[in-house]
Amino acid sequence: MTLNPLARNNRPLIFHPRSQLSMGVCVSMRWMWIICLALVGLNTGGLRADDGYRAWLRYDPLDQVSQRQAWTSVVTGLVCREDDPSVKVALAELQMGFSGLLGIDPSVRPEVSGSGGVLIGTIDGNPEIAVRLRPEDADQIGSEGYVVRTYSNGNGKPLVMIAARSGVGVLYGAFELLRQVQTGVYPHGLDKVDQPKIGLRMLNHWDNLNRTVERGYAGFSLWEWFELPDYVSPRYHDYARLSASVGINATVLTNVNANAVILTEAYLEKVATLADVFRPYGIRVFLTARFSAPMEIGGLETADPLDPGVAAWWQAKVEEIYRHVPDFGGFLVKANSEGQPGPQDYGRSHADGANMLADALAPHGGSVMWRAFVYAAEIEMDRAMQAYAEFQPLDGTFRPNVFIQIKNGAIDFMPTEPFHPLFGAMPKTRQTLELQITQEYLGASIHLAYLAPMWKNCLDADTRVAGEGTTVAKVIAGSDADDGYLPGAIAGVANTGSNRNWTGHPMAAANWYAFGRLAWNPDLSSESVAEEWVRMTFSNDAHVVTPIREMLMESHPAVVDYMMPLGLHHIMAWDHHYGPGPWIDEGRPDWTAVYYHRANADGIGFDRTVSGSGAVSQYHPDVAGIFGDVDACPERYLLWFHHLPWNHPMASGNDLWDEMCLRYQRGVDTVGSWLEVWAGLESSIDAQQHNHVLRLLTRQERESRWWRDACLSYFQAFSKRPLPEGVGAPGHDLEYYRNLRLRYVPGTPSEQ
Amino acid sequence: MTLNPLARNNRPLIFHPRSQLSMGVCVSMRWMWIICLALVGLNTGGLRADDGYRAWLRYDPLDQVSQRQAWTSVVTGLVCREDDPSVKVALAELQMGFSGLLGIDPSVRPEVSGSGGVLIGTIDGNPEIAVRLRPEDADQIGSEGYVVRTYSNGNGKPLVMIAARSGVGVLYGAFELLRQVQTGVYPHGLDKVDQPKIGLRMLNHWDNLNRTVERGYAGFSLWEWFELPDYVSPRYHDYARLSASVGINATVLTNVNANAVILTEAYLEKVATLADVFRPYGIRVFLTARFSAPMEIGGLETADPLDPGVAAWWQAKVEEIYRHVPDFGGFLVKANSEGQPGPQDYGRSHADGANMLADALAPHGGSVMWRAFVYAAEIEMDRAMQAYAEFQPLDGTFRPNVFIQIKNGAIDFMPTEPFHPLFGAMPKTRQTLELQITQEYLGASIHLAYLAPMWKNCLDADTRVAGEGTTVAKVIAGSDADDGYLPGAIAGVANTGSNRNWTGHPMAAANWYAFGRLAWNPDLSSESVAEEWVRMTFSNDAHVVTPIREMLMESHPAVVDYMMPLGLHHIMAWDHHYGPGPWIDEGRPDWTAVYYHRANADGIGFDRTVSGSGAVSQYHPDVAGIFGDVDACPERYLLWFHHLPWNHPMASGNDLWDEMCLRYQRGVDTVGSWLEVWAGLESSIDAQQHNHVLRLLTRQERESRWWRDACLSYFQAFSKRPLPEGVGAPGHDLEYYRNLRLRYVPGTPSEQ
Repeated sequence: MTLNPLARNNRPLIFHPRSQLSMGVCVSMRWMWIICLALVGLNTGGLRADDGYRAWLRYDPLDQVSQRQAWTSVVTGLVCREDDPSVKVALAELQMGFSGLLGIDPSVRPEVSGSGGVLIGTIDGNPEIAVRLRPEDADQIGSEGYVVRTYSNGNGKPLVMIAARSGVGVLYGAFELLRQVQTGVYPHGLDKVDQPKIGLRMLNHWDNLNRTVERGYAGFSLWEWFELPDYVSPRYHDYARLSASVGINATVLTNVNANAVILTEAYLEKVATLADVFRPYGIRVFLTARFSAPMEIGGLETADPLDPGVAAWWQAKVEEIYRHVPDFGGFLVKANSEGQPGPQDYGRSHADGANMLADALAPHGGSVMWRAFVYAAEIEMDRAMQAYAEFQPLDGTFRPNVFIQIKNGAIDFMPTEPFHPLFGAMPKTRQTLELQITQEYLGASIHLAYLAPMWKNCLDADTRVAGEGTTVAKVIAGSDADDGYLPGAIAGVANTGSNRNWTGHPMAAANWYAFGRLAWNPDLSSESVAEEWVRMTFSNDAHVVTPIREMLMESHPAVVDYMMPLGLHHIMAWDHHYGPGPWIDEGRPDWTAVYYHRANADGIGFDRTVSGSGAVSQYHPDVAGIFGDVDACPERYLLWFHHLPWNHPMASGNDLWDEMCLRYQRGVDTVGSWLEVWAGLESSIDAQQHNHVLRLLTRQERESRWWRDACLSYFQAFSKRPLPEGVGAPGHDLEYYRNLRLRYVPGTPSEQ
Repeated sequence: MTLNPLARNNRPLIFHPRSQLSMGVCVSMRWMWIICLALVGLNTGGLRADDGYRAWLRYDPLDQVSQRQAWTSVVTGLVCREDDPSVKVALAELQMGFSGLLGIDPSVRPEVSGSGGVLIGTIDGNPEIAVRLRPEDADQIGSEGYVVRTYSNGNGKPLVMIAARSGVGVLYGAFELLRQVQTGVYPHGLDKVDQPKIGLRMLNHWDNLNRTVERGYAGFSLWEWFELPDYVSPRYHDYARLSASVGINATVLTNVNANAVILTEAYLEKVATLADVFRPYGIRVFLTARFSAPMEIGGLETADPLDPGVAAWWQAKVEEIYRHVPDFGGFLVKANSEGQPGPQDYGRSHADGANMLADALAPHGGSVMWRAFVYAAEIEMDRAMQAYAEFQPLDGTFRPNVFIQIKNGAIDFMPTEPFHPLFGAMPKTRQTLELQITQEYLGASIHLAYLAPMWKNCLDADTRVAGEGTTVAKVIAGSDADDGYLPGAIAGVANTGSNRNWTGHPMAAANWYAFGRLAWNPDLSSESVAEEWVRMTFSNDAHVVTPIREMLMESHPAVVDYMMPLGLHHIMAWDHHYGPGPWIDEGRPDWTAVYYHRANADGIGFDRTVSGSGAVSQYHPDVAGIFGDVDACPERYLLWFHHLPWNHPMASGNDLWDEMCLRYQRGVDTVGSWLEVWAGLESSIDAQQHNHVLRLLTRQERESRWWRDACLSYFQAFSKRPLPEGVGAPGHDLEYYRNLRLRYVPGTPSEQ
């Protein structure tokens, strides 16, 4: 049923993939390159129009002549003799990439010759690969890694080799080679040997079957369920290319607030079609499992995980799924959380529920991703403590194919949170780090916020649980050592949607990119990843790279400053979470803002020390000692852990009130400074992209003031203190801000 | 706040508009043309990839060398001296069009020279225009029409003139000229003098503020309300171009099932931004007015149209709207229909409600479009009769700026319906014909159904009310004659959405196109419009034009055959209306299928003769005589007006049962025949388009059998007759079809 866009009609491989990337007109790559060079030569950069669809796989002609010449002299052909589907898409990607970047159409030949070229293949599939590998290579590339290396090739031209154990390793190597070319690297001396540090690198799509996307801000779902399985959008193919280019190897197609209908036969046919498209790109499909599905679509009276009929139903359902999707990845489950059904409905534990599903999946090689994001309004305990309290005691009771999926922080994707205390605290259990790529609490797709620095705060955080250096990244990566953590996973809640440019904000594509890159290697720096993305997306010109990279790096701290500085959290507007709402005080206490900021005449902040909620005690004592000590606690978490008087002295010499005000102002000022920076780039980047970002930055600047003014007006009613010098006065009174009501904010389930 | 995409950055006009049409890469038009010619020359048509975004304004290079040369020798420049915004977009369109079609970048100069060119402008704005016009021209072009004519220009090269009274007339003339070029016409002897026959030509978008679209099958709403007014999508501009190219001059942005929030200040700012984009294209913006808005957003206790406070509220609201949109068109209102609020909630009449709004709009030049689509479950009268019964007696009581908007038929956009008896029956009232471009009952965006023949059935229908030849088209066109009908309007419920190709099914763009063309001139034939569209969208090659035109022309009859032949109606599935549901018999009687088909052991059909519901009597006696006479009634309306025994003899010689079965089979066979036709076009049209249509046709063929099998299985239970020879046997029993349940069908309000 599926369309294999690469094989269709037996047309030359080279044209088709590119053609699916926004090409509305008939142009071969070679011609395109000539034209583009002509335009570049005419210094008419402003004439270009890029709608963002190609994202970072832009493959526009290299602007550095010497680099282009160097690569052109090397890429005299592609040497490949394998039929593996992943090797074939790797080959097609190289053809497309080189055509765009270099303006050449390298031919494919089966054997290395003296004229150089790019040799691609697997160690077992091509003896010419095997003979060239160094002895130490094989140990360093695992099943998904690669070697990308330039050889002098005797007396002939240099040869670039992409070698791997598997087809998908070859594909990752091909993307790595293209990234090198795109970011300005020369062929000589190229030698990259790499493999992913985390085994399972997943996107989580919170996509509903009616194509709305919970917390999705880039249009609607990519999955056109009604048209599937008949019509197969070219976007599925390009989604897979973009994801695979950064090493993503799994995708959960459906919302964690799950719908059992996805597990019915008619939908499994549609899922199978998507899985067929994704398979050559090394991407396995997962689905969310609604725990009550046996009742809703199975006609059973119960979903009790210990009921043999329920277990049998799931076993049969899993077998049915594998008939459609032989490499199905497994289930992601949100159970007994925010109204979702789960094993506790029957007095069973999370382990009972997860293990029942795991047993059904195990014979087929599938896994269960069981979310630890649970909390109950009825429980008096600090919400930040509930997941740990619920799950940590269950360590050791989960099946080997169960992963406990834990958000980076203990509340819910706040602009800044300390790492979740569960990381490292379940040494007998696989753990998945769940990050949110989509900007639920960070300005949706309107505000620029490059999230790698926030994620790095978590990945690099030292839990100390197994001694110094037990970072979150190491816990989830795991190791094969007997005494090490079990290999885990990393998941990102996707920010993709049906918008032409995938992510709404043109710069939000950097977050999709960065998630993949950090999932592959959490040791990469935020800055280096940002730079890669800017070079691939915009230009290698330093006058473009530097200012955009700096904007990206400034952005998350700026958003934290103007939204929730100093460890403030959960003070956003009700329901849609867009805009300020520090006054929210009605309804479920743990869904209000006042529950978290606790501002009063005395001060502000949530006391989570041992004299407060005690949440700090869930961390290793070394960490608890830091977070719990008002003098040692990093300022960015200060009000997360401490309730402090308005005149509390800060490191800057300001007191708390003044410091808070100045942080809000700093955020506003930073955004304001970008407007000038961005205006200066007008002649250097595509006009359509430039205009799009400019208009969003203009709105972000206005809305950063909205945040500052609304929050400071509200808190000032408690502090009774004037705004310090340099902090802009609000344009309206507090009532004005309280009465603003945004409607139909995208991604808001209640208004769909 | 708005982006004027043509003026942005002061870049050359020529590149920008094209760049917004799917160009993801940097290519000038001239180069593009050279490349495309090269590809065409290489006979590599299959390499092209067209995602459909450009629709019929494709502007790919002309394939006929002689035609291209002829035009190139004429278009030596563009002569224009006016600054009118519509003239400027006309100029830009010509630059873009000629660049694509001819591969030239004609310069713009202010005065005619001996070297020929294209002279464009208004009669009052350019003396060179005025001197060339013929005396009779001015009377034939009205305010929106144009002259497009080739002059020999003395001794120099020929000159093509586009002349009009208004800027928008010039724009329409520019699109006419481009259409001539696109469809294979040569410059010599070109002489088109035309003006629209219907003054107001509107699209109705049933778009909600959360971007779902009621009965929308091409993704979600084009209007990105949350991003507006800051970010202005390039699609708005291209929507306006495509609409203006077929003469559409008004658009209702919001769903008739209305939301008062659109009338709040925050949304009016967004509406104003769209209106600013559309204005140069001659498109006025309308909104739907929720009748209870004074209560919902105005804080009033009532929405009684005779309450002075209510009238004052609307008056102030209208003034507010005009501050944002100085050329605001007015309100479209669905009142007291299917749960919408209206004047009858207060014991007032439709005229009371419409006139109150009309009085508020009149000082500003705005109008009220008041829908006649009303019916009540509690009323015993045949649903088909209720609108007439309600509205006809109100003739003469509406303000001059009220239009009564009437669907083509008396039920609801069924695959086939006789014309609505209200047409012509309210001689003192302006009437609007409402057609449905979106395929609510015609296979959504999955089934190919070219709707012009269906619309022509209504437009050409002779109401006889003011004597023979009083066609529906003449009634709504109206005239300036004292004894004529008042000038009315035509409205089409749009089939556009956020899908890349605007309409979902690539062929559904033909319906958007045809609606505009028939709104401009209802006398055009369906076939000629189809041919224009095919030529503009695919090719002028007869081997492409003929088979696709024939498929289009066969399509509506085929869909009627396999869905609801012989005047059957309303036998579709519940709620989503996709697929068969002749068994629907629960709930509101007038929402069931059995209410309409009335199949029983004796026969089938709804008796609307004088011995039945009497609906036939709402027509002029001449028409009633035809429809009411079983022997005179056109077969396509037979079961609409008559309940007939299964063995009723038909014109074919078959009896009714056999004829019905054979019609179902004929529909299936017709769709099946297209598969081969379409396969034969593979090498002649774009691969992406070809594949997309192929997959939809394959599904349509399968689903045509579903319709046949489900309906015949159901009716056979009454007829107790075997299927005649040649009619395929159902694959399943009736229970199977009854139990099929489609979920999440796009455009279905209840599942959004």
